[in-house]
Amino acid sequence: MDFHAIIPAGGAGRRLWPWSTPSHPKFLLPLGSEKSLLQTTATRLAPLAQSLTFVTGSSHAEAVRRQIGSLNLDTPSLFVAEPAARDSMAAIGLGAALIERDYGPSLAGSFAADHHIGGVEAFHNAVAVARAGAEAGKLVTIGITPSGPETGYGYIEVGEPIPEIPGLHLVNMFKEKPDAKTASAYLESGGYLWNAGMFVFRTDVLLGALEQEAPESASALRKLAANWESLGEPAKLAWWEKVVRAPIDTVLAEPMSERGEVVMVPAAAAIDWSDVGDWEAIYQLRHQTGEKLANLSPQTPVFQSDSPDSLVYAPGLQGVAVIGIPHAVVVESGGKLLVTTRENAQKVKAAGLAADEW
Amino acid sequence: MDFHAIIPAGGAGRRLWPWSTPSHPKFLLPLGSEKSLLQTTATRLAPLAQSLTFVTGSSHAEAVRRQIGSLNLDTPSLFVAEPAARDSMAAIGLGAALIERDYGPSLAGSFAADHHIGGVEAFHNAVAVARAGAEAGKLVTIGITPSGPETGYGYIEVGEPIPEIPGLHLVNMFKEKPDAKTASAYLESGGYLWNAGMFVFRTDVLLGALEQEAPESASALRKLAANWESLGEPAKLAWWEKVVRAPIDTVLAEPMSERGEVVMVPAAAAIDWSDVGDWEAIYQLRHQTGEKLANLSPQTPVFQSDSPDSLVYAPGLQGVAVIGIPHAVVVESGGKLLVTTRENAQKVKAAGLAADEW
Repeated sequence: MDFHAIIPAGGAGRRLWPWSTPSHPKFLLPLGSEKSLLQTTATRLAPLAQSLTFVTGSSHAEAVRRQIGSLNLDTPSLFVAEPAARDSMAAIGLGAALIERDYGPSLAGSFAADHHIGGVEAFHNAVAVARAGAEAGKLVTIGITPSGPETGYGYIEVGEPIPEIPGLHLVNMFKEKPDAKTASAYLESGGYLWNAGMFVFRTDVLLGALEQEAPESASALRKLAANWESLGEPAKLAWWEKVVRAPIDTVLAEPMSERGEVVMVPAAAAIDWSDVGDWEAIYQLRHQTGEKLANLSPQTPVFQSDSPDSLVYAPGLQGVAVIGIPHAVVVESGGKLLVTTRENAQKVKAAGLAADEW
Repeated sequence: MDFHAIIPAGGAGRRLWPWSTPSHPKFLLPLGSEKSLLQTTATRLAPLAQSLTFVTGSSHAEAVRRQIGSLNLDTPSLFVAEPAARDSMAAIGLGAALIERDYGPSLAGSFAADHHIGGVEAFHNAVAVARAGAEAGKLVTIGITPSGPETGYGYIEVGEPIPEIPGLHLVNMFKEKPDAKTASAYLESGGYLWNAGMFVFRTDVLLGALEQEAPESASALRKLAANWESLGEPAKLAWWEKVVRAPIDTVLAEPMSERGEVVMVPAAAAIDWSDVGDWEAIYQLRHQTGEKLANLSPQTPVFQSDSPDSLVYAPGLQGVAVIGIPHAVVVESGGKLLVTTRENAQKVKAAGLAADEW
């Protein structure tokens, strides 16, 4: 079966404030390379996929189209602007319905536009295994072996191997973001992988399962897909609002896993995945072993004293001095400044929300 | 006897980087009020003095003249640009020689241009007592009762009271900046005051003592003063370089104190003196009791989380968030940024020196 990629490009990335903001969200921004996370994601998927379907908020549709256009990919792309933000079930479901409309029942995978994957080959290998599971009618997720007791990710409890398809395991249960103690226990047991939010499935299986869990959602998505180009915005919005507003995890993945219909590929460690969710994640990606400072804006000089293992990004400043703050995080963007430590990286969202008023 | 004020305006204030720099030093900068420290110092001294003599580096002579001119003081002012930087003995000695030339042997006092004095009445009272001691032929210093075990100031060991002049004590000894343990011992003993670098004296006593300690310096200063307006710059510099390059403390105050010729006025606590030497000193001056943040640039919004008792000054930024750094110090000036804590305030000088290369 043909394989198609759905790339939901959403989320404000507020824990990466002030670099990421609702008007310039994380997926549109470059991460040290010349390409944005969105562009890197598309480049990684294009060789695998017969088509790429980008689902994004209307305010970013033009930027997404422009960034992808500049890549000159051979793979055909469809750009879908959501009538309104409606969480991941609606976005992925609409993508699946449009793919099924255009290509018939197909294999598809949904991959966030704003994650980092350092090991492209390991990723491609994981997708190949996931496709085999999806062809067999399963909802397949790609799990990431934890590199530490991370509290910022959801976890997947690994079940028995699937004998028919080597490399696949049953998913026993999805677990919410744990507290530090639970995360350490997960890490020690070895039986829990990070949920990276990647799902591979047959479009007919996904839409069929949605039909079962939320019948009105499934028929609204099919209606929308069938008439996407001809519907006016008010009509689109009216159908869109009939789709359940919730993550695919709670609408499908959790109930399906209870019925043994969800399986996982444990990705090789070489996949080097990160959700690039906060400044600690960026530090982990970008610092060089043995270096005392990750300066992400090397044109800005940094004086550092008693502040080892810090991160500075301040392209708009003429120079930065950090004194006596180990693990400091100093980020300037558009004249707004964040000063914190890596240990506090998950608390940045509140600052971004407050900054909306500035 | 008439009283004249000498105001040496020098020093780069590098521990207040990036606000204070060699080209825009501390004494020229406003400290939250509309007046600069220099202007506040002149305003405080004008009612006491028959004249004000400003001794400054040539690069700041014009700015000093302009700032003082804008005050429209009734007291006549003399502006003296040093041929080169040559420490405090030369600056104060030249001021004294010029005053003696113009007014005959007089009372004079030397007061730094970049200190804070909150209690003007207490200061005036201390100067009045100091004048009495100076008229009696002593070198008089004004001591400050410590408010804490400060390691950033020199200390004065208080000796016996002078029976003839109420309010004056002998100076037993001048002490260098102490380590933390010594500073605590000084504080506990109650017998040590801060050396605020304020000296009151008769010009003929000062120049006579200099004659004795460093004869060539005294005659060079008298030569310079006699011909100040007519000498060309090279000739001025040649005489200037014959003057000892050292602080008045080591050239005169210490040897004179060994001969019992130095006395002190312990200023009332209400004088509220600070050398405004570092960001901790600025925090102490500017924070409001009970407030969690001293925001010295109130037009810049600040989001603060788990960062009590911090200081922010960032007039060039659109907003600042400080997360998880108690006692944070975040200072932006001219596009340069300092991030530290109040506990590290004395380490800022090295950053300022490094920033000269930026």
